[in-house]
Amino acid sequence: MAVYTHLAAEDMAELIAAFDVGDLCSAKGIAEGVSNSNWLIETTGRDGTGARFILTMYEFRIDIGELPYFLALLDHLAARGCPVPRTIHDRDGALFRIVDGKAVALIEYLPGVSVSHPTPGQAEAVGRALAQMHLAAADFPAHRANGMNLAESRRLFDACGAQGLAEIDPALPALVSRELDSLTAAWPADLPRSVIHADLFPDNVLMLGDRVTGLIDFYFACNDLIAYDVATTHAAWCFANDGTHFDPALSRALLAGYQAVRPLSEAEHAALPVLARAACLRFIASRAYDWLNTPKGALVMPKDPMAFARRLDFYADPANAAFA
Amino acid sequence: MAVYTHLAAEDMAELIAAFDVGDLCSAKGIAEGVSNSNWLIETTGRDGTGARFILTMYEFRIDIGELPYFLALLDHLAARGCPVPRTIHDRDGALFRIVDGKAVALIEYLPGVSVSHPTPGQAEAVGRALAQMHLAAADFPAHRANGMNLAESRRLFDACGAQGLAEIDPALPALVSRELDSLTAAWPADLPRSVIHADLFPDNVLMLGDRVTGLIDFYFACNDLIAYDVATTHAAWCFANDGTHFDPALSRALLAGYQAVRPLSEAEHAALPVLARAACLRFIASRAYDWLNTPKGALVMPKDPMAFARRLDFYADPANAAFA
Repeated sequence: MAVYTHLAAEDMAELIAAFDVGDLCSAKGIAEGVSNSNWLIETTGRDGTGARFILTMYEFRIDIGELPYFLALLDHLAARGCPVPRTIHDRDGALFRIVDGKAVALIEYLPGVSVSHPTPGQAEAVGRALAQMHLAAADFPAHRANGMNLAESRRLFDACGAQGLAEIDPALPALVSRELDSLTAAWPADLPRSVIHADLFPDNVLMLGDRVTGLIDFYFACNDLIAYDVATTHAAWCFANDGTHFDPALSRALLAGYQAVRPLSEAEHAALPVLARAACLRFIASRAYDWLNTPKGALVMPKDPMAFARRLDFYADPANAAFA
Repeated sequence: MAVYTHLAAEDMAELIAAFDVGDLCSAKGIAEGVSNSNWLIETTGRDGTGARFILTMYEFRIDIGELPYFLALLDHLAARGCPVPRTIHDRDGALFRIVDGKAVALIEYLPGVSVSHPTPGQAEAVGRALAQMHLAAADFPAHRANGMNLAESRRLFDACGAQGLAEIDPALPALVSRELDSLTAAWPADLPRSVIHADLFPDNVLMLGDRVTGLIDFYFACNDLIAYDVATTHAAWCFANDGTHFDPALSRALLAGYQAVRPLSEAEHAALPVLARAACLRFIASRAYDWLNTPKGALVMPKDPMAFARRLDFYADPANAAFA
């Protein structure tokens, strides 16, 4: 959550001049993004009445070859009425530019705030927006494999080692090995596929009241089972932050909102608990890896892996199968 | 340069509702300020056409008892046409509020960027704005002593110790003891006084082209010799960042701009080299202290004290006395 690169105002003005958006009026580094730097940019606008944008510089963890997938997806979804920010193309039509060897993209600014304590009305709106996105993405022509699938979770857990996992929590090694085996065996491979967001936490949704004004941060987007995205979003929205206190009202609202736009098939419905366990395992894996590999005093505090172990326990308990 | 506190959107909306500025539309934590957290806030505005503000939460190094001085000063200067952001008072007329035990103030948002490579035209405009501020502050009724004066520099150097200073640079202990004695003896006590900014680096000036749109960050403002502020601003603007490469064109432009609005007296003029040395010593002192006392890996990288030792050498050389 930091700005990793200093861009002199003079260089920023030159960069902004490569886009047809008017002259630079203001650039504030914003404390968002873990692997990129972001600035809230204000310009005079094409018509002189002012315009705002987010400028993103990709710092780590991104393959520039994948940027066109993420940035063209924003255009594709925005053109179909989804509340996602459009990519501003430069004067040559390019989706991104290179500054000091790093890719930078100019992205539409959207109003809205990320809620910390969602209401059922907000969860329902997020369900609707997610379903709308899945439908709108159906004819997106590009393809990207899910880099955070079960195989990647297994690779990350192997890198942590049983001893590392036990340092985080004594119960973690057994939970991980049980779930890796069980989920691999139970994986529902033939469900409908589309582009999925794969990381739709409240942080990545902008809202004004009960209205979704922006789905943002598509840098985990990929082609995978649609119901896996529903399960991921469910795990991200329907619990207290530390994974305790499942909220059935949020769960009902999220799924009702989703199904009002795109009803889940019976097979998708039945698969939700398994997919939700896989989603939890994916976040346990990346958080456990970061937990063990983040130097003390680093800019970004690692997140607690056990917050998703608690969610996983919820989904693995047959008594809770009725959530779906 | 970080946001130290997480404020949930729901709490932010409640806080903003305490001001008559419309409803919260957006809040982005911005990477500015070393001892406070800042958010760029957008609201619907009083008339529904939108408005922007900076919300500042005071985290460290501030005495809440001093906040009224800084915040009322903004109002005083803005009312006299200076390009400074006004303080937005809450519905009860208060200059700041307390959230989770910390003071927060809502401040007008001003456009503009902070230049990294000023031109003479920009330096001249800054000189004019500084002089305008000194004149406008003449009847500001409150008083605050300069907490970063020579006595404080001496205290900070004592806390560093000769050995600590020598670790930073072998030449530093001798330079410090020579300057402390010489400046104390040569101090021009009876020059005109007013409120001074005391920290007018390019970072603290917003500009659009050659126009000053904002003087910001008044948290070192105090009552002291006016010419000391001119000298501080000179040291901050007329050298390359590392203290090498004095730029005579910037120096001439800054002083010409200043004197077009408020001519310096002969005594002020003659005192500039001594005051500039004191300004350099003040920044060497605080930077040396931070250099020796900032934990490795901290969020804020300490700045190089020697960048101001090089400036001090410039001002102490009689061959350069003609700069003023």
